[in-house]
Amino acid sequence: MLSEKYAGMLNKTSVIRDMFYFACDRAEKYGSDNVFDYSIGNPSVPVPAEYNETIKKLLDDPDFVSIHGYSPNLGILSVRESIAAYLNKTFDMSYGAEHIFMTSGAASALCHAIRCVMRPGEEVIAFAPYFPEYRPYVELADGTLKVVQADTETFQINFDRLKEALNEKTAAVIVNSPCNPSGVVFSDKTLKELSGILEEAQRKFGHEIFIISDEPYREIAFDGIRVPYVSKYYANTISCYSFSKSLSVPGDRIGYLAVNSSAAGADILVPMCGQVSRGLGHNCPTAFVQLAVGKMIGKTADLSVYERNMNLLFDAFNSLGMECVRPNGTFYLFPKSPEPDAKSFCEKAKYHNLIFVPGDCFGCPGHFRVSFCHDTDTVRRSIDALKDFMRKVYPNA
Amino acid sequence: MLSEKYAGMLNKTSVIRDMFYFACDRAEKYGSDNVFDYSIGNPSVPVPAEYNETIKKLLDDPDFVSIHGYSPNLGILSVRESIAAYLNKTFDMSYGAEHIFMTSGAASALCHAIRCVMRPGEEVIAFAPYFPEYRPYVELADGTLKVVQADTETFQINFDRLKEALNEKTAAVIVNSPCNPSGVVFSDKTLKELSGILEEAQRKFGHEIFIISDEPYREIAFDGIRVPYVSKYYANTISCYSFSKSLSVPGDRIGYLAVNSSAAGADILVPMCGQVSRGLGHNCPTAFVQLAVGKMIGKTADLSVYERNMNLLFDAFNSLGMECVRPNGTFYLFPKSPEPDAKSFCEKAKYHNLIFVPGDCFGCPGHFRVSFCHDTDTVRRSIDALKDFMRKVYPNA
Repeated sequence: MLSEKYAGMLNKTSVIRDMFYFACDRAEKYGSDNVFDYSIGNPSVPVPAEYNETIKKLLDDPDFVSIHGYSPNLGILSVRESIAAYLNKTFDMSYGAEHIFMTSGAASALCHAIRCVMRPGEEVIAFAPYFPEYRPYVELADGTLKVVQADTETFQINFDRLKEALNEKTAAVIVNSPCNPSGVVFSDKTLKELSGILEEAQRKFGHEIFIISDEPYREIAFDGIRVPYVSKYYANTISCYSFSKSLSVPGDRIGYLAVNSSAAGADILVPMCGQVSRGLGHNCPTAFVQLAVGKMIGKTADLSVYERNMNLLFDAFNSLGMECVRPNGTFYLFPKSPEPDAKSFCEKAKYHNLIFVPGDCFGCPGHFRVSFCHDTDTVRRSIDALKDFMRKVYPNA
Repeated sequence: MLSEKYAGMLNKTSVIRDMFYFACDRAEKYGSDNVFDYSIGNPSVPVPAEYNETIKKLLDDPDFVSIHGYSPNLGILSVRESIAAYLNKTFDMSYGAEHIFMTSGAASALCHAIRCVMRPGEEVIAFAPYFPEYRPYVELADGTLKVVQADTETFQINFDRLKEALNEKTAAVIVNSPCNPSGVVFSDKTLKELSGILEEAQRKFGHEIFIISDEPYREIAFDGIRVPYVSKYYANTISCYSFSKSLSVPGDRIGYLAVNSSAAGADILVPMCGQVSRGLGHNCPTAFVQLAVGKMIGKTADLSVYERNMNLLFDAFNSLGMECVRPNGTFYLFPKSPEPDAKSFCEKAKYHNLIFVPGDCFGCPGHFRVSFCHDTDTVRRSIDALKDFMRKVYPNA
């Protein structure tokens, strides 16, 4: 019979998508130059020419079976070896190819990791503000997503709330640093404290609690900071990576997961992912795209526009007296709404052609997300529109 | 906690894969020219040059966001429109783009379809001999796969057994025509009778029973036969297609599913697939691969080698007195084993460098599968090896 589970999901539309579609309609009416769509995070910097050239060269290979033939079900070995070597060198880790599983982006990596370390009925913890797709990832694997309220002063972790949330059913904790939507990077201090608390919880509850580390923004860091590598702090960590942002290729659906070599089940977690994949009919990302990113490990597109945009927008919000925790990375800002109800703020802003997403979507009301995947000229013009809007609608803010 | 479900699957290895690895070892020892690997079905005909050129042209598009940016979550609209138009023209159907969902091959299409029309605890029926991955597809969606024994005279459907298998829990029936492993195409007569029985069962049990039609071999048909289009016979049909065989690109992971426009839930099944996809972290096949196949709809690689190989092998088995139902398509033959235990036969054959897969894997003991994705010269040489093996090991057969 038609699945009530999936049919039932059809009525719950995504606010982010709704805002995006509103922006599209608005752009048609007022011209795309006059509508500032800060709703979705579609990477906008040019794809490295080297990546495209690499694919073209692969397609010219007369050994077409090695290019267009089936990929081994855990991913192409040479690519997994390159990734392990890169992570070991960059983060001083001890991965072998056997700890790397190729995925269709970070989303797919997360869904595989969740199925491997969470049994039906168990819980996964996320820290607000959090990426809202974590909910279907966990719930459609028959688990429960538990949200730890935000520390809105810093967007580091609210540890008191975390301790309350941990229990015998906790299977995993999702960490997302740099964070969508806050842009904040979890500090060395935060990760040490998190690690200590989880170690203690593991002892207390008598089973492993995994960190599933969602790291698509690893290379987008500002002010020269180094993003601490989560797996370095905690053995039971599965790192989920995507090339979507670093190479600006979200449509190519390519990423990987990396199981810490000291994790519980380190020797079986990647083969388990292969079994998860069988049940999903996933069977690896596109083989020649795997081969292409294999040649690009450690290289990125020119990501500097994101820091330029962040600085302009951060200063603008500041000058308007709107509080905002300074992002350490990503292409998001997460300012405090000038009125307590961020949904009401976003509704008003959108009719002034400023399309933001209310923080309620991310489990953090009273804030709004600004996704600045645009060229800097557009950002500059949007700031004029923002100032105009604030003067008219919030004259006393 | 580590999933017992997926960890438990690690001990069950695939016989097909085992045979394939044996062939690889053997090839290293005896030279690849002397080992005849008829185990796995890795398409071996050249990829159409036009397909590769189409991808290269896409990569040169200065509008890189339209090439490497996110795909809409149901697939790229223009591609879905092209597919609907092609199916309507070719099979006299009434699809709109809203009935087409882009997938990572037929495997992914099947897994999405199963989740949409089968609730946990329900049953899906497959006809032996059947593709063994149907089992994890159904079981990992928390359903039960029920196998209807083969009609080994014709490899059409054993309808008496089908009637026994249908019950109030039956959610769907998987049809695979042309069939892996038998190569047989379900006839017009078979499909009419199947349709009638399912219509009656729907009335009897008071709910829809879907046909999930697995059609990756649709274009590989022999002796000039036309492959009847299953969805034409039965409204509640979801057709699952892959470009893996028609374009010889299994590693590219690209296909689609097509919901009959008169099916129950025809207006919501594709959006439901989008929700299934969210939970799997799948998020569409590679966007530019979608665009590339969109330009290749209805075109195929030169598939003629498969018919040539089939004729040679079919005649060889015949001349050796080995019974075999003549395949109507695919790149498989499924002869009767010269001894009742096909596993024993395949064990003996493999040490004569002839690598076959016992029919037991496909729910049909006493037969073995011959996957002839090879150039014709290799097939010719394998026939000499086969004759030699049969003379030595089965002198009285």
